[in-house]
Amino acid sequence: MLPKNRVLTPGPTALLPEAQIAQAEASMHHRTDAFVELFRVVRTGLQQLFKTERPVLTYASSGSGALEACVANAIEEGDKVICVNGGKFGERWTKMNRAFGANVVELEVEHGRAVKVEDVQKALEENADCRAVFVQGSESSTGTVHPAREIADLVAKRDNTLMCVDAITWIGAHEVQTDAWNLDLVVCGSQKAMAMPPGLAFLSVSAKAEKMITERKGNRRFYFDIARELKSQAKDQTAFTPAISLVASAAASLKWILDAGVDTLVRNAGDLSAMSQAAVGALGLELLSDAPSDSVTAVRTPGDMDSGAVIKGLKKEFGAIIANGQDALKGKIFRLAHLGNYDYIDTMGLIAALEVVLAEAGLKFDSGAGLKAAQAEYLKRKG
Amino acid sequence: MLPKNRVLTPGPTALLPEAQIAQAEASMHHRTDAFVELFRVVRTGLQQLFKTERPVLTYASSGSGALEACVANAIEEGDKVICVNGGKFGERWTKMNRAFGANVVELEVEHGRAVKVEDVQKALEENADCRAVFVQGSESSTGTVHPAREIADLVAKRDNTLMCVDAITWIGAHEVQTDAWNLDLVVCGSQKAMAMPPGLAFLSVSAKAEKMITERKGNRRFYFDIARELKSQAKDQTAFTPAISLVASAAASLKWILDAGVDTLVRNAGDLSAMSQAAVGALGLELLSDAPSDSVTAVRTPGDMDSGAVIKGLKKEFGAIIANGQDALKGKIFRLAHLGNYDYIDTMGLIAALEVVLAEAGLKFDSGAGLKAAQAEYLKRKG
Repeated sequence: MLPKNRVLTPGPTALLPEAQIAQAEASMHHRTDAFVELFRVVRTGLQQLFKTERPVLTYASSGSGALEACVANAIEEGDKVICVNGGKFGERWTKMNRAFGANVVELEVEHGRAVKVEDVQKALEENADCRAVFVQGSESSTGTVHPAREIADLVAKRDNTLMCVDAITWIGAHEVQTDAWNLDLVVCGSQKAMAMPPGLAFLSVSAKAEKMITERKGNRRFYFDIARELKSQAKDQTAFTPAISLVASAAASLKWILDAGVDTLVRNAGDLSAMSQAAVGALGLELLSDAPSDSVTAVRTPGDMDSGAVIKGLKKEFGAIIANGQDALKGKIFRLAHLGNYDYIDTMGLIAALEVVLAEAGLKFDSGAGLKAAQAEYLKRKG
Repeated sequence: MLPKNRVLTPGPTALLPEAQIAQAEASMHHRTDAFVELFRVVRTGLQQLFKTERPVLTYASSGSGALEACVANAIEEGDKVICVNGGKFGERWTKMNRAFGANVVELEVEHGRAVKVEDVQKALEENADCRAVFVQGSESSTGTVHPAREIADLVAKRDNTLMCVDAITWIGAHEVQTDAWNLDLVVCGSQKAMAMPPGLAFLSVSAKAEKMITERKGNRRFYFDIARELKSQAKDQTAFTPAISLVASAAASLKWILDAGVDTLVRNAGDLSAMSQAAVGALGLELLSDAPSDSVTAVRTPGDMDSGAVIKGLKKEFGAIIANGQDALKGKIFRLAHLGNYDYIDTMGLIAALEVVLAEAGLKFDSGAGLKAAQAEYLKRKG
């Protein structure tokens, strides 16, 4: 057989063809009306995706660049912050805050568990001077959602604390209401639910965040300076040369999302997630997470089976690239992606390939059990 | 007539078609052998372009991101630095250093003049504790080259001072020998001589820079952390998700450059620059610079002629986008680009269009005088 090469990872996700082609088509200078028109479409599209009337900034960087924008703008050396660390990306919040001199109260959470709202509440009570809370909406390294909305409710009651959410694999896979839920700084990246290439990061800035950021002067930032970008981007320009071809790609991606509807994109990820969870259960495998994200399903490999062998098998026999665990979870889990441009056929095809590879790796199950469970889940949700 | 739309600016420069198409073709995950192979080609190609055996890092950012990498890694709060400010980008070095808490000794230079080596020498002597010198190889806002090589000779004699060069419009337009000239931190951007889209920045790191950077711990950086990237990129990976499609574009660009030869690319810019200077003189116009860069020729508009009118005329009648002055120079100069994928035909065509527009704006000259002078210069240099 002649397998196709397929990226089936939670980021970069499979590319939307229109977003891919738009890069090659883009040929313009950025200080022109043509760019202004393009960027206005992207800015207003991002506001719809984030469900905010506030500005959503675009940076030429990977998602981590906009995470740094949150830290470098929100805090000054010595500021106290609370970081939820339940995986690789939670750990990144902590490391980044320490790199910028913050006094970090770290809430470590077992991998695969969601942080408890009462633990955040306690930390907030014990640290009245806390300037910001940093959390993932979805921690993709473990496939877990944290209760970011409930945490935001607590933070919203405090005038001097900002709610900073890494929504890189949350937006487009889960319902996210930036304004209604009082999320102050919300970060997204281009290569996730938007199904476009990596290289752009997006950051929404609440009025509270803008006020708190601009009244401080000791921060160490220039490239990621939020105040400067707010000023430039209000005029549909960027402070520094934008990644023009990626901005064109974002316009194509947002057209696809808004034509379908943000809620449809979210439901799509939820349906694929439910199908995948059903399949995993039917094959006798366990999820890593007890608060599973709809962006990515993290599956434990049984006993001493190396997840790397499953992943290699999928690539070799079926051309399918899926994600391993990262850092301490490497070899112990594999991850099935749902956010972005994945559909029923992709998911059923991947489950079918997974069955073959898992059987070869020695897992015992009735052939087709995963497929049957996934299909049943689909039909049930279709109603 | 039906004019084509042409970007004829000094950055973004006209796109190399292969680099444009490569973006749309790229579809891979970055934690794969396919990316490792691609990135290795880019890394070694960049070393040839920079003329260095040291690592050249790739960042997902615009050029200013790598400028920030220099500042945020080289200096700690309170460090003394020397910044040459002879235009918009020199000013950026100063602002960036101040944003990161440096004690800046600013050498202000009139726009269009090169900094004097003896002024830098004097500043170095008066500031023995200076940790870094920041300068542009080519200051594109004024079309001026600074004597970066000669300054580097002075800095190389000092164990505790780093030579940081913004080479964004210098590399590929002028001879640059990173290792032989002891340039410690050299910054380049993708959208200039490489004739590819914006969104990547490149940074070479000398052994001296690596040592001085890694022995300090108080810097405020994470996304642009040089030590982390040196470690990752030595394994043909990036610390954060790379802008994959732009990395593929860089590979196509570097293939074009290395097939022709770096020196050929540099001579091409030099020839086009000489042709343009000859044309400008023949039309009775003056250059802004007395040390003109081969990347871009900055031309003063005579009397009270607004350069914006010339630029608008070129766009309206001939579809050609050229650059205005920036900030205080806006309306006073226009800029003709030479670095990257421009050739004889582009340049003669642009001069021909410029003659029409300048005559309409009221400039008196013999029709064809600019063309004749440019052609004569071409033939002279062809030998």
